[in-house]
Amino acid sequence: MNKLLCLLLALIPSYLYSQSAFTVVPLGVKGGLDESNLSSYMVAPAGSNDYVCLDAGTVYMGIQRAVDAGIFHLPVSMVLRQHIKGYLISHPHLDHLAGLIINSPDDTAKTIYGMPNTLKVLEEKYFTWAGWANFGDKGEAPVLKKYHYAALEAGKEIPLTGTTMTVTAFPLSHGEPYQSTAFLIRNGEAYLLYLGDTGADTIEHAGRLAALWQTAGPLIKTGKLKAIFIETSFPNSQPEKTLFGHLTPRLLMGELNKLASVAGTKALYNFPIVITHRKPSGNQEAVIKKELEANNPPHVKLIFPRQGSRLEF
Amino acid sequence: MNKLLCLLLALIPSYLYSQSAFTVVPLGVKGGLDESNLSSYMVAPAGSNDYVCLDAGTVYMGIQRAVDAGIFHLPVSMVLRQHIKGYLISHPHLDHLAGLIINSPDDTAKTIYGMPNTLKVLEEKYFTWAGWANFGDKGEAPVLKKYHYAALEAGKEIPLTGTTMTVTAFPLSHGEPYQSTAFLIRNGEAYLLYLGDTGADTIEHAGRLAALWQTAGPLIKTGKLKAIFIETSFPNSQPEKTLFGHLTPRLLMGELNKLASVAGTKALYNFPIVITHRKPSGNQEAVIKKELEANNPPHVKLIFPRQGSRLEF
Repeated sequence: MNKLLCLLLALIPSYLYSQSAFTVVPLGVKGGLDESNLSSYMVAPAGSNDYVCLDAGTVYMGIQRAVDAGIFHLPVSMVLRQHIKGYLISHPHLDHLAGLIINSPDDTAKTIYGMPNTLKVLEEKYFTWAGWANFGDKGEAPVLKKYHYAALEAGKEIPLTGTTMTVTAFPLSHGEPYQSTAFLIRNGEAYLLYLGDTGADTIEHAGRLAALWQTAGPLIKTGKLKAIFIETSFPNSQPEKTLFGHLTPRLLMGELNKLASVAGTKALYNFPIVITHRKPSGNQEAVIKKELEANNPPHVKLIFPRQGSRLEF
Repeated sequence: MNKLLCLLLALIPSYLYSQSAFTVVPLGVKGGLDESNLSSYMVAPAGSNDYVCLDAGTVYMGIQRAVDAGIFHLPVSMVLRQHIKGYLISHPHLDHLAGLIINSPDDTAKTIYGMPNTLKVLEEKYFTWAGWANFGDKGEAPVLKKYHYAALEAGKEIPLTGTTMTVTAFPLSHGEPYQSTAFLIRNGEAYLLYLGDTGADTIEHAGRLAALWQTAGPLIKTGKLKAIFIETSFPNSQPEKTLFGHLTPRLLMGELNKLASVAGTKALYNFPIVITHRKPSGNQEAVIKKELEANNPPHVKLIFPRQGSRLEF
């Protein structure tokens, strides 16, 4: 009888008995250079196939790897067309949106969410007739209207069409005056926080992360926030003047200490921090991982995502 | 003694005793969608490491695969920085230049060759401060001058800096009025011809391919032209109104028949035609290959390039 019970439990999808609130499928995890693996994370409520993409640096190759790993049981094009309901773009650097542009001819109609500065670059630089085709619903005529641009406003929660999730945007500083965005995703009472490229407050002097921690801290304390996705582009050896609005392990831990002072050190203990955007020059990825693991004062649970895998939070 | 001779011959690099004039390493071979494998071909005189890239859709991942295959014995970044002396961009669609942009922060100073319309899009849309950084030597200040823009003029031969090769550009029609480019590469008395995306003259009504065959034909007849790289994006079933300036197997063979009438059918027999830019939707790649092999009236040698391999011509 016990054996039968175990067997039955093994057959039930994990989301039916687990506590997880979100499923995340990383489509790309690296901080530049490698075109096959650039920042993009599919996120859906656990048990749902209604995903949005948080950034879209690499799309097709990430889905391909997820299909190869048995995470999706559809051809790549069907996952692209049916499971992805929209794109949230943190900032308009090509390593965060190339996959969206390159796959646009075969994509279905959906919404692109971003701060006005991000949507402006999409409209004026990428979805143009000189460089590509205008698949947006604004800009150069003829306007093909495959994608609806939805402008985000800092701090204002809006629904993510085709899903049960919502998003609230927070501005980030990515090498002043260049701006990036954090997305606070909500599904019911559960939250997930994704940060696009960001510098540290100590370097950027803009207080963007301190402001974000004021929102995130209480959500961690009450157990509602399930994970934070945040970048660590460079190792500690990177000189300050060539950070270009990015974090190192030391700077990240400095920021997490500040978050701990809002959330409480107990709440942050073993809290999932997903490390994004390690730049793959030389052996930097390994160095960044080692430096983070060697110096983790808040004792967060460091997660190094793999392209085409499944994460549950 | 015979055994020893065989052993010695096996140890001599192929270029020392073969007739080959050019080495080509495909960095990406697909016609869109898959960010890990978009149009780009490194070409150098046989025996030299002074390559240029013909288009640059995928760069890093293509070099990575070539390194994995033992073709280069350097880290990816060193191949990028040292072996690639310049980029020739056929037209400014993102699937032909994304790899160049994404790798630009880690690249060394080199030249980008293109027709004025291509360079204009690079300058105004991609190498801008709103979308990326201006690594060009023209356009929005501050101008970082990593890349020198070299404007090509139709029919005029110019040297490719850092190599012993030259290039002559020929305009192509890619869905009128959209323009693309063919590059005729010369090293000494040997030639290689690479066409960017192109429609058929029968569809485009511009006579661009007929004009190109007037140059290519005599070079085939005299044995100087070693190979032609040309696209076949869609299978024969693609409706004419959705060709978007691309070729099908039937349209390609129609054009090669016209080339045969200039070059002579004998000269074209077994002549290497490298098929680029098959669009990977559904099973299209396999269908295109099958249709080409099933109907090859000029009996050309059809070559389907693989990413990260080495081709000798």
